[in-house]
Amino acid sequence: MAKTFGTLLTQVRETRPLVHHITNYVTVNDCANITLGIGGSPVMADAIDEAADIAGIAGSVVLNMGTLNERTIPSMLAAGKAANAKGVPVVFDPVGAGASKLRNDTAASLISEVKLSVLRGNISEIRFVAGLSSQTKGVDASENDATDADNAGKIAKELAQKLGCVVVVSGAVDTVSDGNKIIYIENGHPMLGNLTGTGCMCSSLVGSFCGAAKDELFLAAAAAMLCMGIAGELAYERAGNLGSGSFHVALHDAISRMSAETLEKLAKYREA
Amino acid sequence: MAKTFGTLLTQVRETRPLVHHITNYVTVNDCANITLGIGGSPVMADAIDEAADIAGIAGSVVLNMGTLNERTIPSMLAAGKAANAKGVPVVFDPVGAGASKLRNDTAASLISEVKLSVLRGNISEIRFVAGLSSQTKGVDASENDATDADNAGKIAKELAQKLGCVVVVSGAVDTVSDGNKIIYIENGHPMLGNLTGTGCMCSSLVGSFCGAAKDELFLAAAAAMLCMGIAGELAYERAGNLGSGSFHVALHDAISRMSAETLEKLAKYREA
Amino acid sequence: MAKTFGTLLTQVRETRPLVHHITNYVTVNDCANITLGIGGSPVMADAIDEAADIAGIAGSVVLNMGTLNERTIPSMLAAGKAANAKGVPVVFDPVGAGASKLRNDTAASLISEVKLSVLRGNISEIRFVAGLSSQTKGVDASENDATDADNAGKIAKELAQKLGCVVVVSGAVDTVSDGNKIIYIENGHPMLGNLTGTGCMCSSLVGSFCGAAKDELFLAAAAAMLCMGIAGELAYERAGNLGSGSFHVALHDAISRMSAETLEKLAKYREA
Repeated sequence: MAKTFGTLLTQVRETRPLVHHITNYVTVNDCANITLGIGGSPVMADAIDEAADIAGIAGSVVLNMGTLNERTIPSMLAAGKAANAKGVPVVFDPVGAGASKLRNDTAASLISEVKLSVLRGNISEIRFVAGLSSQTKGVDASENDATDADNAGKIAKELAQKLGCVVVVSGAVDTVSDGNKIIYIENGHPMLGNLTGTGCMCSSLVGSFCGAAKDELFLAAAAAMLCMGIAGELAYERAGNLGSGSFHVALHDAISRMSAETLEKLAKYREA
Repeated sequence: MAKTFGTLLTQVRETRPLVHHITNYVTVNDCANITLGIGGSPVMADAIDEAADIAGIAGSVVLNMGTLNERTIPSMLAAGKAANAKGVPVVFDPVGAGASKLRNDTAASLISEVKLSVLRGNISEIRFVAGLSSQTKGVDASENDATDADNAGKIAKELAQKLGCVVVVSGAVDTVSDGNKIIYIENGHPMLGNLTGTGCMCSSLVGSFCGAAKDELFLAAAAAMLCMGIAGELAYERAGNLGSGSFHVALHDAISRMSAETLEKLAKYREA
Repeated sequence: MAKTFGTLLTQVRETRPLVHHITNYVTVNDCANITLGIGGSPVMADAIDEAADIAGIAGSVVLNMGTLNERTIPSMLAAGKAANAKGVPVVFDPVGAGASKLRNDTAASLISEVKLSVLRGNISEIRFVAGLSSQTKGVDASENDATDADNAGKIAKELAQKLGCVVVVSGAVDTVSDGNKIIYIENGHPMLGNLTGTGCMCSSLVGSFCGAAKDELFLAAAAAMLCMGIAGELAYERAGNLGSGSFHVALHDAISRMSAETLEKLAKYREA
């Protein structure tokens, strides 16, 4: 299967999918640059008067509720529905689900009105969406929600079955499930947690891979998470001791230079 | 007192305060990353339907009117009032006060309706808020408003007494007053003025320290300004001759690697 | 003429024009920092209640419709008209023109209601504005719209005559025309296309130069494009092999360190 991940990366670089984001204004530049770095073509468009138009011509749609508001929530719904109508994959990142009623209600609306392809969040967000007790504090995972990989796998698998989509739980070990199989990804570095937007960037990578391989969403999501994990390791090796600014730069470098060979050689995962 | 600054930094890193920002979309990524770098946990949430909810669970609230608009002004007021009700410190950065009627009116509303913990701005902004003649041009301090540190200290002290909060005036020398004492901070580097958002980042650092030490707002604000000044010096030493991009990266590096020891060793200030 | 470009750069650094941007939230930080880097003073202000006020005191206005919405479109119109009334140069960047009805309608409104000083876009955007067939895909130029420099020159020249403004077409070769003369700029590097916002940054540089030299808009626009092209070359030399993150940093470094001497020495262009 390792070979497949490399092939998927090549597909991203060759097909250059248009990845339509409706996302937050905090990490949007990183999302655009990471999408370009992996080989996609990002477009950010959140006006209600064009959200559906752009989604309809996109290779994938990434909905990220990091700085949601009354203007962009209807746009996310419209983009998601237009994508569904055209068979365009939809990735949803429920940033801060559990932290406010607005976020909870918005996540519920998106999940009930849009058919998701991939749901990606941290353990607190995914627990909340799964209807489990969650202690989200802001937009970072709560330490109280930390769990072992096997338990995250169980949660992801059950939620994937319930929603009929791929579920990704980011963490020290990333968990990806399609409701049947589970892939546990062991790449990564704790320093990724000290940088804002690494979760959002994961969702952009997932969108890029899904836009290039809409018939293999499970592997596409796993390939994206592997890329981020490996890039985190490479960035730490090169710049971790310099500080978070240099790590940030090296992370973009590593994604932009990621090759199919590097991906296959450094990927560390197990299947269940 | 030098020891105290180090202790305050340790408190930030140990308590990891949630710093709720309603801020501009220009420098928001830097604000989030500088908050993470110093040890806080940033959350950006400006929708009126969640601003008060998030402020109520935060360690501190930072209101920055850099790109204010009719949607976010009510959110800033709501967040400020919710913070007041819960005893959460409020930091206000009146970006561009004096440059337009909208900014002037908004600053006036926030000051009259919200009890501030810390007000931080450049000399043009602070002069405007203090009701003195001001020649704000855009969002940078006007050269015509430049003044010597002692005069800035007098302005800060009187305004702090009037508003019942800590006032910070950023400049070649930073001035911090609680209406009684004044601390003049001599760390820093002119290159900080060639980078957008260094003022906003100061406010985020002030928010991080205040969230960790709400009973010592005066020292907390001074510690934050010392960190930025020292980080500016370290960044210039390491990368200043390379250009503004490298200086920007090195600034984040320096904040993320700031230790209590470095802070105490390199702090240059005088009290009055 | 090479001497003139250097003189124009010196004028930017000496007059420090206030460059009022109403721009997208994706690349706005880069736009602000590139403006500071070249010597201008950026201000971002998009609320309808202050857009005209700020435009009226600015040295130039940059209107960029990268993430336009129902709130900011009227602000762009108001800022453009206020700038016209005060004789302040207006630079328009029709990001994604051709990609949605909203963008097409907005571009048409701005062009008919505001007297532009400079229009800058990629070949797909400029073709669309010129009423030619265009295959815009998102916000990047379509490969199908790629053309040779001479043809781009013809399009730019005719559009410049029609609109009575300077037209800049960004590409492998940048084309600048005032409807009479054409300058073809051969500086640059393909890696600029792998970074988001390099087009937006060009518009900010054009705004900075036009704010400093409102009587020489044609040369000002060319000088700005030369600076970006040269900075791209210098950034690639220093950091291109490291990846897109390091290239991004080096690009800001190169702009901030650009001297009149470097500009004149490295400029590669031909006139027609």
